Amino acid sequence: MCWRFYNRPVRFHARNGRARRAEFATAHGVIQTPVFMPVGTRATVKTLSPADLRAIGAEIILANTYHLFIRPGHGLIERLGGLHSFMAWDRSILTDSGGFQVVSLTDLRKVDDEGVTFRSHIDGSQLRFTPESVVTTQEALGADIAMAFDHPPAWGSSDSEAAQATLRSLSWAERCRKAHGRANQMLFGICQGGFAAEARAESARAIAGLDFVGNAIGGLSVGEPKELLWPLLAASLGSLPEDRPRYVMGMGAPEDLLAAIAMGADMFDCVLPTRLGRNGAFFTRGGRQNIGNARFREVPGPLDAECDCEACRVHSTTYIHHLFRVDEILGLRLLSLHNTRFLIRLMEQSRTAIESGDFGEFALEFLGRYGPTNASCLQARVAIVDAMRP
Amino acid sequence: MCWRFYNRPVRFHARNGRARRAEFATAHGVIQTPVFMPVGTRATVKTLSPADLRAIGAEIILANTYHLFIRPGHGLIERLGGLHSFMAWDRSILTDSGGFQVVSLTDLRKVDDEGVTFRSHIDGSQLRFTPESVVTTQEALGADIAMAFDHPPAWGSSDSEAAQATLRSLSWAERCRKAHGRANQMLFGICQGGFAAEARAESARAIAGLDFVGNAIGGLSVGEPKELLWPLLAASLGSLPEDRPRYVMGMGAPEDLLAAIAMGADMFDCVLPTRLGRNGAFFTRGGRQNIGNARFREVPGPLDAECDCEACRVHSTTYIHHLFRVDEILGLRLLSLHNTRFLIRLMEQSRTAIESGDFGEFALEFLGRYGPTNASCLQARVAIVDAMRP
Repeated sequence: MCWRFYNRPVRFHARNGRARRAEFATAHGVIQTPVFMPVGTRATVKTLSPADLRAIGAEIILANTYHLFIRPGHGLIERLGGLHSFMAWDRSILTDSGGFQVVSLTDLRKVDDEGVTFRSHIDGSQLRFTPESVVTTQEALGADIAMAFDHPPAWGSSDSEAAQATLRSLSWAERCRKAHGRANQMLFGICQGGFAAEARAESARAIAGLDFVGNAIGGLSVGEPKELLWPLLAASLGSLPEDRPRYVMGMGAPEDLLAAIAMGADMFDCVLPTRLGRNGAFFTRGGRQNIGNARFREVPGPLDAECDCEACRVHSTTYIHHLFRVDEILGLRLLSLHNTRFLIRLMEQSRTAIESGDFGEFALEFLGRYGPTNASCLQARVAIVDAMRP
Repeated sequence: MCWRFYNRPVRFHARNGRARRAEFATAHGVIQTPVFMPVGTRATVKTLSPADLRAIGAEIILANTYHLFIRPGHGLIERLGGLHSFMAWDRSILTDSGGFQVVSLTDLRKVDDEGVTFRSHIDGSQLRFTPESVVTTQEALGADIAMAFDHPPAWGSSDSEAAQATLRSLSWAERCRKAHGRANQMLFGICQGGFAAEARAESARAIAGLDFVGNAIGGLSVGEPKELLWPLLAASLGSLPEDRPRYVMGMGAPEDLLAAIAMGADMFDCVLPTRLGRNGAFFTRGGRQNIGNARFREVPGPLDAECDCEACRVHSTTYIHHLFRVDEILGLRLLSLHNTRFLIRLMEQSRTAIESGDFGEFALEFLGRYGPTNASCLQARVAIVDAMRP
């Protein structure tokens, strides 16, 4: 139960049902899990500086291989000393593999068993990613954690399409493992399986067989209904190794994070907190709100009385409402900071609750205040009750 | 030679020719002059937080009465404890009077001897400013320094139009003095005079006769050629009291600040550093540059090797170039921060130079590196040499 590259064991602090409170080391620090990773697609978490991210307790952020490959190019980043140096972030970084992006976001893409051919969204030039090239790109970027190249089946794929993409992702994961050689970088596998629980479990078992130091669950939260999500996630989590980090890709709503933690997930990333922030939405203990609402015109108190971020410590809700009404950039920044802090603090609170052995109570109490009548929160509560059952 | 409201004398630390190094107190701190005031039009210096402004040494910022009157309204700001509390800025604030805005920026405005009637740029509603109403608005906002309501003649006005606007500004200044009663707020006068030196001197003498605790020079940098600007500014400055702060409104190019300091100006404000920053332009000791230029694609060093701002201490030029190429908000923020720090540091350097008695040498050496062949810098150098002559 040792990390291949660091020879340090993953340490479990506590378990609470299936929920886990652990830590593991990267080349740039120790990650306390469960952990939320803010997304810095283009080597910047939108609107926030490295100092802002440190101040809200971010221990690890994510950057996107596809976007950095296109601009400014991994060669330039490598020449400048790698991604940490390039973006002036001295804590941990995870890079995704670009699989999701090239398969779902690019035009004119063609997936074959060897790799993916696609057109750049910038200049239309024809480009190609293979498992080996994606590993090379991520080694050049130099993140602490690299991800295997995968082919996530789209929501709406037939069973045979999903099966083909899942098998292809397995073969690519194996090729990534063989190609990867950077000593101070971990490589995580990604399981798929489409939208059937048995196929999910099978893919997870197959990926587990490749003995990655950490494993991710891909291809979920891509448009499928919530009542499908939880059984699929449970099937994937249940077949991944207990003693290694389990990362659910692309998940960021508070209710989803709590349900996934209850099922045994450790790591999360999502653009949600910064995207919501730029659109004027913000998290509070009483649910999601929109700052543009007229009822925030004259509220001298903070966005969320329990929050310790700069936006809440320093500024009134009224002021941030004003900034949005007059289109001032500081408004986007303050809500992005607040929302990201909200999720990081939710992880801190979850870790404390797991340590005290009352994660289930914490999560249900949180959701009772956060979204007492919201469908997604109600589904999450059911999933939590199910998962916490002995 | 005492401030009316604080009973503290303006203290002169040093003089160097006409250049002055002084300090004066407001209700929120001591202002060291010469000073540059970043502009926070809508109660936010664009892209920057109060903590950013403190970190770069801003001691006083400016906010615009017209914009805050329109949105969110001075009544709301007053109910929330005034502008300092509203924008969470505990150092000094100056509010302009809105004269420049309602005369030059609004549609369908009609100026008469009593005041200005204009249409809101937001909803087209008809509004009216008078000297008395503008004082009331600024008292409600609660800035440390309020400005008299004025009518700046537009560039291109006839002599008789300019004379009428100047006389009107004098009568309005007197009405503002009578109307003003807020004890912890200073009121500054504004002289006009259009574009003839004798009219400028006459307006300055008349405003001086009203015994304001500080005096501003309005109606310059509105489109007139640079060769006109310096004699006009000299005429205004030469007729304002020696023992009180002299504020040149709307000036922000480094060469202009240095020439105006040489002529005896103490205070400046301008949107230039943040506006340039949002457009990708940045100050360096070697002149103004544009971050989008391809030659900044691979520059591991800072924007300006001599700068101590966060953008220069933490980030490479390459990284900021990348942020602009991919339209990331952090780029706007880093250049705005750098440019504002550049002007504040130029003021710090100017103060030191005046204290050492070598302001002329400092300013000419600075401009020799900053814009050796630039017309505006060459004109400023001539103005400095003229002004420093005994």
